[in-house]
Parts: sequence; structure tokens; C-alpha cells
Amino acid sequence: MTDVHSSQTTSIQTEIRVRYAETDAMAVAHHANYPVWFEVGRTDLMHALGLPYAEVEARGYYLMLSGLNVQYRRAARYDDRLTLTTHVSEVRSRTLKFTYQLHRAVLGGSADLPAELIATGETQHIATDKAYRPARLPDEVLKLLQGG
Amino acid sequence: MTDVHSSQTTSIQTEIRVRYAETDAMAVAHHANYPVWFEVGRTDLMHALGLPYAEVEARGYYLMLSGLNVQYRRAARYDDRLTLTTHVSEVRSRTLKFTYQLHRAVLGGSADLPAELIATGETQHIATDKAYRPARLPDEVLKLLQGG
Amino acid sequence: MTDVHSSQTTSIQTEIRVRYAETDAMAVAHHANYPVWFEVGRTDLMHALGLPYAEVEARGYYLMLSGLNVQYRRAARYDDRLTLTTHVSEVRSRTLKFTYQLHRAVLGGSADLPAELIATGETQHIATDKAYRPARLPDEVLKLLQGG
Amino acid sequence: MTDVHSSQTTSIQTEIRVRYAETDAMAVAHHANYPVWFEVGRTDLMHALGLPYAEVEARGYYLMLSGLNVQYRRAARYDDRLTLTTHVSEVRSRTLKFTYQLHRAVLGGSADLPAELIATGETQHIATDKAYRPARLPDEVLKLLQGG
Repeated sequence: MTDVHSSQTTSIQTEIRVRYAETDAMAVAHHANYPVWFEVGRTDLMHALGLPYAEVEARGYYLMLSGLNVQYRRAARYDDRLTLTTHVSEVRSRTLKFTYQLHRAVLGGSADLPAELIATGETQHIATDKAYRPARLPDEVLKLLQGG
Repeated sequence: MTDVHSSQTTSIQTEIRVRYAETDAMAVAHHANYPVWFEVGRTDLMHALGLPYAEVEARGYYLMLSGLNVQYRRAARYDDRLTLTTHVSEVRSRTLKFTYQLHRAVLGGSADLPAELIATGETQHIATDKAYRPARLPDEVLKLLQGG
Repeated sequence: MTDVHSSQTTSIQTEIRVRYAETDAMAVAHHANYPVWFEVGRTDLMHALGLPYAEVEARGYYLMLSGLNVQYRRAARYDDRLTLTTHVSEVRSRTLKFTYQLHRAVLGGSADLPAELIATGETQHIATDKAYRPARLPDEVLKLLQGG
Repeated sequence: MTDVHSSQTTSIQTEIRVRYAETDAMAVAHHANYPVWFEVGRTDLMHALGLPYAEVEARGYYLMLSGLNVQYRRAARYDDRLTLTTHVSEVRSRTLKFTYQLHRAVLGGSADLPAELIATGETQHIATDKAYRPARLPDEVLKLLQGG
């Protein structure tokens, strides 16, 4: 994974290889796997930001998903190597948004072989305590999510 | 399952019981299961319309998912009995939309115990042939999807 | 679901309908779903025994899976209606075993249309406390698991 | 991934990072994910043998799972980095066996930090044609599976 983040932009690229178990009888990756991959992207991004999600939970918080949007452009297939780009797109004291672009083939390939866009998506999250009550994230957590 | 459909409205209710495998470390149903449940609702609805999805494929078509939107309102937990209401909300010759409401507890419960709204959602679909090329659905299929 | 249990035999039948998301590119139900279905059978069986699994956890115990064995005989497909028979096959103070038979078509069908055996399986479980340490199950729990 | 194979031994190591979606309400990786990981190991191993599984299907064969055995030793958790070692343990003209060892922490770590064994497993497979009828694998496929 390669991280690119500053105080302005906060994103990361993750390689996803389509598992056989993720295919369906149409011989393409089943659509319900995309939010699972997005979650893998968030895990990578939070590691890169110095705030592994396991630490967020250890501090007593959950980031619960409140909204999901996916636009599927092209089908993905077994063994495809996909590149997922995950961005933090909005950080508020109690809510977060992430956006996602999923491409086939390595980003940054030659101009002759541009990556194909497979899907785009967005997730919305609410910070809660361990009793699932909305909670304000600590300032140092918010700062890390904003790219330091 | 109970079906309610006319030439105007086309919907069905499906009971979903949350499986242990569908929970995650937050002890709630993981969000990626909701599109799987929606798909179960579509299966039930298409049976009720006299057009089982397996028949759509047998006729040479796929209904590929092109868009997914879920709003999560309350968490669902292991062994919860949920009621999923699935509607056909738009039928065009090449595209379809379905909407979903997921409640906890049986719909139509007493006024003292109204069902809790767990989530709402929408899916968009494109009709294709078996080579994944966009295709126009036959008139009799469209008619069935419109509730006959 | 139909329960059949006495102090001697303890089993239940559960209907499983194959979900589209459970199929794979071979157009059959992916093998990793069978242990998920077995777990649905255990949930049903424990309800029938008067010991819902959620109550086992509420009392402070987990029944962690320690072993899994599945023999796959015939493929299952999208929308197939399967009948899963779940048995408690061994109850000890710290370990349990369950066995499973999965058939296509309703068990007890006519002699002309005997049910097809799809798969058989066994799971082994260890009782632990919430810190994952092996623990002895209370006598009343053991008694319920033995069919009262 | 690192491949080690000769005409005698045929195995590979694959890194598996536990996804949040793979955890359950016990806060450990749900047992039904292990066969999915084993399949990822087989994909890697067949690439290393010069026989990507997608090519096996392109030649007109399926390797259908006929048996699965898993022994779970220790729980795995969200974000754990596991090392899966996949072996071809038996190659016959119509059937195959693979075995698996899953460890936490990088294999080959220092003597002070030996890898923990998380699980072991075995899968049995039957070669079929695309109509799911048992079939004999071509000699060159068998030779590649035997490590050339």
C-alpha cells in the first residue's frame, strides 16, 4: 500500500485481488463484497494516518456505518487485481465520510493502458461509545483523521 | 412471505433472521449483509410476480446491479427477526429500481409496539444478455415486473 | 422448523433457501456457506431445546468452534430449498458435538421422489468464558442440551 | 507470497490479514472464513505452479470441493496478520488434496517469537467437466500440480 497524505488530502491505495468465494453465478464479483473491500481500504488508511481502527475501539469508540452508496461501472472477475483508492472526505466531531474509487490494473500504468474504473462509492459513519450512543471523537483523533 | 401487488403497487414482505455469521466484532449485523438481504427480498418478490429470477437467467438475461444505496438507522443483532419490505419502484425496458424497508419485529404489530425502522435502501439494475451487454427485456417480463 | 427431541434424541429440521450471494462462478452454492447454514441449524435447535444461544452468551459463555468437517455429495444451486437436519451428537461438560445432514427437497417426500443428500457434516465446540478460557457448562445447560 | 516447490514438495505461503467483516460477535474471525482463506492459498499456489485456476476452468474443468476439515487451535482477530501455508498433498488423475497451516506472525520469526498455530485444515477436490461430471485431468495439468 502507498500512502499519500498531507493536512489537505488524505488517501491511500490498497490492492484487492478478487477471491473465488466473492464471485457469484454471473461469474462476476458479487456486489455485496464492495463494501467489504471499502472497509479494507479504511483499515489501510487509518494505519497510514497513525490511527489503526483497533485503537479507536480500544479507546472506547465505534465508527458505525450510517450510510453506503456504490455505483457499479464494470464487472470484476475472479483473480482480478483491483486498486482501491480510499479518501477521508469529511471529518466532523461526530461524523465521518470516506469516498472510494476502484480500478482494474495498477494505477499509474502506461498511458496506453489506462486503468478501468470498476466502481465508486461513499460511506458515512457516526462515532459512538461502546453502548452505541453518539459520541464526540477526541481532538487528537480528529486531527489524525484530518491528516495530522 | 405475504405478497401484495396490483398493477399499481408491487411489493412483498420477507422475514430475515440475523445469522451469527452476519454479526461482527461490534456485536451487530455487519453492514455488508444488508444488500444480501435485499437480494433475498428481490427473489421473493419475483416469485410472487410469477417471474422467478432463475427464469430470467434461463431466458438469457442478467439483472446486474448498477447502484446501491443504504441508510442504516438502528443496529440489528444476532437472532433478531427482521421484516424486509421490497418494492419494485421503477420498471423500464433496460433498467429497474427496487426499494427496501427493514424493520425489527413483525409489521402490523400492535399500536403499542410499533416496528422499529432498521434501514432503508434502493438498488438500480441493468438488464444484460449473458455476454453482459445491455439488453431490452421482453414485454412479457416487463409486464410481470409491473405487477401484471 | 419442526423439532423432535426426547431425552434420547435431540434434533431439528431447518429450511435453507440458497441465496444468490451464496453462489459462485461455478453456478453452485460456495462450500464456505455450509458451515454458516450449520450454524443456523444450531440456532434453531437451541431454541427448540429451550436454550437460545443468545442466552448462553448472556450467562457468560461462548461455544467456540474447535473442529469442522464437511462431506459434499451433490452441488446446491440458487433458489434450491434445502432441508438441514441438526443433531446434538455429544454433550460433555466442556465440549459439544453436532452433526448435520443436508437434503434437497422436503424430507418425508413421496417414495417416488426421495430427498437427495447434498452434504453431511460435524462440528466440535469448546465451552469458554468471555475471556476465551475453557469453562465447564452449568448442569442445567448441559441437561437442556441433552434434551431435558 | 513466497513459493517453494520441487518435484517433491509443492507449497506456498500467503499473507492473510483479518478483515473486520470477517469477525463475529465473539470478536474473533468467524470460522466460515477459514475455507475462504484456504481457497486464497490454493489460488496463490496454482499461480506459483504455472497453472492459474482460471486456466483450469478455461480448459473446461472445475476442481469441485468434495471434503473439508478444519481444526481451530487459537482465535484470530481483526487486523491480525496471518501466514497461510498451502500444500498439494495428493494428486491423482481425478482427485486432489491440499493441506493448510495457518499461523499468526511471520513464519521464520526469531526463536524468541515463534509463530502461533491458529488452525490446520485439509480439502479434497474432484475434477469435473463444466457439466459437473467427474473427469480425468490432462497429464500436463497433473504434472504441473505435482510441481513440474
